[in-house]
Amino acid sequence: MNTEMRAVALGGGHGLHATLTALRRLTDDVTAVVTVADDGGSSGRLRRELGLLPPGDLRKALAALAAADDGGARWADVFQHRFGGSGALTGHAVGNLLLAGLFEVLGDPVAGLDEAARLLGVSGRVLPMSTDPLDIEAEVTGLEPDGAVSRIRGQVAVASTPGQVQRITLHSVVPADSPGAGAGVTPAVTPPQACREAVEAVLSADVVFLGPGSWFTSVLPHLLVPELHDALVKTSATKIVILNLVPQPGETAGFSPEQHLDVLFQHAPRLGVDAVIADRDSVPTPARLHSAAAALGGRAHLASIATPGAVGRHDPDALAGCVRDALGATSAKEGLSWR
Amino acid sequence: MNTEMRAVALGGGHGLHATLTALRRLTDDVTAVVTVADDGGSSGRLRRELGLLPPGDLRKALAALAAADDGGARWADVFQHRFGGSGALTGHAVGNLLLAGLFEVLGDPVAGLDEAARLLGVSGRVLPMSTDPLDIEAEVTGLEPDGAVSRIRGQVAVASTPGQVQRITLHSVVPADSPGAGAGVTPAVTPPQACREAVEAVLSADVVFLGPGSWFTSVLPHLLVPELHDALVKTSATKIVILNLVPQPGETAGFSPEQHLDVLFQHAPRLGVDAVIADRDSVPTPARLHSAAAALGGRAHLASIATPGAVGRHDPDALAGCVRDALGATSAKEGLSWR
Repeated sequence: MNTEMRAVALGGGHGLHATLTALRRLTDDVTAVVTVADDGGSSGRLRRELGLLPPGDLRKALAALAAADDGGARWADVFQHRFGGSGALTGHAVGNLLLAGLFEVLGDPVAGLDEAARLLGVSGRVLPMSTDPLDIEAEVTGLEPDGAVSRIRGQVAVASTPGQVQRITLHSVVPADSPGAGAGVTPAVTPPQACREAVEAVLSADVVFLGPGSWFTSVLPHLLVPELHDALVKTSATKIVILNLVPQPGETAGFSPEQHLDVLFQHAPRLGVDAVIADRDSVPTPARLHSAAAALGGRAHLASIATPGAVGRHDPDALAGCVRDALGATSAKEGLSWR
Repeated sequence: MNTEMRAVALGGGHGLHATLTALRRLTDDVTAVVTVADDGGSSGRLRRELGLLPPGDLRKALAALAAADDGGARWADVFQHRFGGSGALTGHAVGNLLLAGLFEVLGDPVAGLDEAARLLGVSGRVLPMSTDPLDIEAEVTGLEPDGAVSRIRGQVAVASTPGQVQRITLHSVVPADSPGAGAGVTPAVTPPQACREAVEAVLSADVVFLGPGSWFTSVLPHLLVPELHDALVKTSATKIVILNLVPQPGETAGFSPEQHLDVLFQHAPRLGVDAVIADRDSVPTPARLHSAAAALGGRAHLASIATPGAVGRHDPDALAGCVRDALGATSAKEGLSWR
């Protein structure tokens, strides 16, 4: 008997939205595992004010997986709506505020996300990569003379640096004034803890997706959560990397497609990859990409997957078609079905 | 064939919560018609910042009518939850923020309230008395020497005045900077417009309740919306007034039960009343209350309906029992059932 393909997509922001929008065309069993290192905008304000997980990327993933019926579409609109004006609420997305309330009342981000998913009629699941808010730190060159390395901290700062990001690290920061920290104590920096349900989803998946998205701040962070990294190495799922259509201004300005794979390898040398999906027109030197993919143990699939006229936006139908081809070409498990 | 009793309760705040909690024991067909003149707290901030209906009293009514199952109770908890801390969100109830989002996205408060009611599993309906935010103005004595009359404005100011409120009026205020007002125009003060669905609910009701609650700021305002007043005069529904257990500090400090009926009559001389429900221990001179009720065309029903040990709080079961008795004693329509 055929069972539906269990897909897990790791990422954040608009890139994850693109993957999820494509995947829901292929299966109802989609789990999004979302970065929680954002420190900007509405999410950053909520995180600083209430000490909660930054909800923005989680909200976007919920909206991408909302049911296509009237109720799902209406609630997705409400979740994505931002207050205007010039007051205390300006710029806050309604869904961010509701997620913050659910996190506080239910006392567990996973329970809060499951409740929000029911409201939006999500048939899959949206999970945080960690149940603690995380901080990104980057080693950057080009900001100081003589190739000196600068360390910059925070997702917004890293994503917009005019320097060249060389490497990122990820920390869980327990604020000095949190209940467990004691008075006058320096903030405790600990390795990030994975969300247990996210680890389980990766281990039991049939196919796992990394990217597209802001490479250093939305895609690579997942590889730096030790338990999540180990699950990605260990899982028998087919592993597919989806590359960006255009280099990100700031963090990956000037990066070639194969450089994206290189930094992936630098941050997770033990992670094998089965397939790399890229837009044909975004790859100046296909031979180099084929080599880079082969070095990771996989195969590059080039197709026309950009939305004509919309810079940097994947076409969901074309991306879904390319995913289907890539899965067909790998030694995928038998008996899996998709739509 | 018996049909379920259609009950409409007019009020706001904790008083309306008490009526609704009692009525849901008697029928599933409860419509709350809620005051929208609040200018304090979370509601006042949202109203000033976004120009929307103040959502707080609407939120409380939704929570009072939320389904008793796990889902309804959980969402009612989320709606009623207030953010803590000391930042921009402090004191905002999550349900207020969500209602504000629904009002903005759906562009119609009634549609927004119906959507929220579905989420909470409300079997009745929650409606605003007007779809415009309203302002209360009061004539107050005792603030100036020689019995001079002061005019004070705003629900918070009126509810907490140390003077004696003599009379209130109600206005719809179109801000000077609203799309229809034009630049440099003085705010337009117009008579309050009733919510059409609220008028229809009153006209088709079997029984209508006024009170308990802050008399001048939650109960009487409904009588000052012309179309709602006319519907209350015209409806064939049994009309029941529920009196407060204790005088409100501020606006009705020192008021006797019969004085509450007197000011009701002063504000709506054409409104007949079929029954007046009061707590036995809160009526110092029953004969006077019986006379005052008779002057309005109705009968006073005294019973023990206070929650022992909770000052000013009605006991829902006892209040429901007294409502049942009062309805049985009036010339209620035949064929109506309740639980």
